[in-house]
Amino acid sequence: MTHPGPFEDSHRVIRPDPVNAEVRPEALWLEQTPAERFYIRSNFPFPPGTGEDQPLRLGGAVRQAREWTVGALLERVQRSLVVTTECASNGRTGFAPTPEGEPWRWSAVSTAEWTGVPLVELLEEADVDPEAVAILFTGRDRGAAGDASGPIHFQRSLPLEKARDPDTLVALAMNGAPIPLEHGAPLRLIVPGWYGMASVKWLESIEAITQPFRGHFQHARYRYEYTDGSSAPVTVMRPRAIITDPVNNARLPAGTVRIRGWAWSGQGPIDAVEVAVGGGDDVWQPARVEVPSSRHAWHRWTFDWIPSGPGLHILRCRATDASGDRQPDHARWNRHGYGNNAIHPTYVEISAG
Amino acid sequence: MTHPGPFEDSHRVIRPDPVNAEVRPEALWLEQTPAERFYIRSNFPFPPGTGEDQPLRLGGAVRQAREWTVGALLERVQRSLVVTTECASNGRTGFAPTPEGEPWRWSAVSTAEWTGVPLVELLEEADVDPEAVAILFTGRDRGAAGDASGPIHFQRSLPLEKARDPDTLVALAMNGAPIPLEHGAPLRLIVPGWYGMASVKWLESIEAITQPFRGHFQHARYRYEYTDGSSAPVTVMRPRAIITDPVNNARLPAGTVRIRGWAWSGQGPIDAVEVAVGGGDDVWQPARVEVPSSRHAWHRWTFDWIPSGPGLHILRCRATDASGDRQPDHARWNRHGYGNNAIHPTYVEISAG
Repeated sequence: MTHPGPFEDSHRVIRPDPVNAEVRPEALWLEQTPAERFYIRSNFPFPPGTGEDQPLRLGGAVRQAREWTVGALLERVQRSLVVTTECASNGRTGFAPTPEGEPWRWSAVSTAEWTGVPLVELLEEADVDPEAVAILFTGRDRGAAGDASGPIHFQRSLPLEKARDPDTLVALAMNGAPIPLEHGAPLRLIVPGWYGMASVKWLESIEAITQPFRGHFQHARYRYEYTDGSSAPVTVMRPRAIITDPVNNARLPAGTVRIRGWAWSGQGPIDAVEVAVGGGDDVWQPARVEVPSSRHAWHRWTFDWIPSGPGLHILRCRATDASGDRQPDHARWNRHGYGNNAIHPTYVEISAG
Repeated sequence: MTHPGPFEDSHRVIRPDPVNAEVRPEALWLEQTPAERFYIRSNFPFPPGTGEDQPLRLGGAVRQAREWTVGALLERVQRSLVVTTECASNGRTGFAPTPEGEPWRWSAVSTAEWTGVPLVELLEEADVDPEAVAILFTGRDRGAAGDASGPIHFQRSLPLEKARDPDTLVALAMNGAPIPLEHGAPLRLIVPGWYGMASVKWLESIEAITQPFRGHFQHARYRYEYTDGSSAPVTVMRPRAIITDPVNNARLPAGTVRIRGWAWSGQGPIDAVEVAVGGGDDVWQPARVEVPSSRHAWHRWTFDWIPSGPGLHILRCRATDASGDRQPDHARWNRHGYGNNAIHPTYVEISAG
């Protein structure tokens, strides 16, 4: 397999090397993002492509270390889930002051159907020891990061309970086809409801561990580090609604405008999406929210708007999830700029006549 | 004179009726904004055009009420000043939650040369009474506003000291030509250093008053109304720097980029402009700031940037004025959304190779 790309025609490239790229606005009109349009987050250069003989090892605090080839995993009963995945850094540049890190705007989110083997089945076959506290995942990608003297692999751990969730998959296919290299071929962990850093790409090994993992991408990154010195791990996606149509800065004729978008949360289903046209205290109106195609997929919402007149208008939307959490006007600033689910405006211009 | 416009080709129209329109990005490249590109703020429809026989009355608490025609004012010794004027609502839509009011973005600012008679000379001829506390200005434009039962005129007062500032002008010309109707023809007050609401358009009368003015545009609008219940009048422009070049979302070839922009403050000259490329705590670097062509005009600044590589970059700038006031990451939210001089990013994409 050759190095894919360039991605300039299919994405909005944030950084070309390693590739980090957002979804283009028109690709957000689709419920399922085509694989070649899905957002790309890489910490390191893509590792080389491999074939069906690539092994996946499962070891550590288990009674029976196991190893499967990709080919063997493909032989197993597969499970398919439509999952919305958002980068923890989506919206980072909306924070002020601007945090360090890739300058993500508001389109590091995509939805795909992932097909694979539930991780819990593999864990059960290996018989995880009772003293295990977490499961550690290692990707084939590696490079320099943090204070390490040499290259390190991308590694992340998951709490046992989430690792044993039947919806946490070792995925072998994306939208019904082999996973493209840039999205983690041939094996990618999929952790529904969590920000994307949990869905380890290019998965090559799984380890049950008896002490909390403190590697770079668990402890020095993907933590909310607040200005008061407190911190917390980045885990589930916060509620967010986005307007996909009209696109920002659209110029539209007079008449009713159907506003459309998506809403999601890792904390539960979306209970409500509200839309505001213009400013003020009391301008929020409910949108129609549809049941998603899967409990891990975003909800379609629509709102019919009759513009008050020609000129520039500011449109906003906000989601409330089943936990009662609602998108804020400002998300709490944190050093690395994670989880910025603040309400984000769309501007549209209505023509006269 | 016929009703001017439409303004769709020359401006970014915020509202067509009454006309409210921002400056287009390319018009900000010029130090002096052409009159036909200057931002337009109207509270009411434009009043009818008038000729040189239009009177300007000066009365109230004065020993000698006076009246001059436009023609008579044109006969007097004229003074010319280059002045940067910004709408108090510039940046309103950058506040969260979004305040009520016209959805101004970040381009309600312009610079012009205004020529006219210093107001202080007219005040001296009328011999303002010692008990006067302020000078009230009335424009010919009028319409419905606030709780008033009938139409009201646009009216604003100025403290005596500012009214007597030799740089406060009754302007008769803009950029060396008669003032266009949309900018206040034939007479406009120009109050350098203050937000634009002070520079009353279509000026028809001046009155010395012995009690503070509490009309709609002085008391119900153009006040900072904070969430803690405190409030303060909107007066001088807060420091602000803007990037005019490259324009937002520009795609540029590799190589050095000369970043250019303007900086101004009503609190004094600009002491420093700093530029940040990317995020983090310690990324601010000084720009070269030029002496402006007038003490009321914006300062040109430039910064040569060598991009670290291809991809998306976030550029920010911030001004510090001679009072020591520096642009903040967030301006204090207020009910009507005035004075939002928060740092505002520009995104640019550097092509590979």
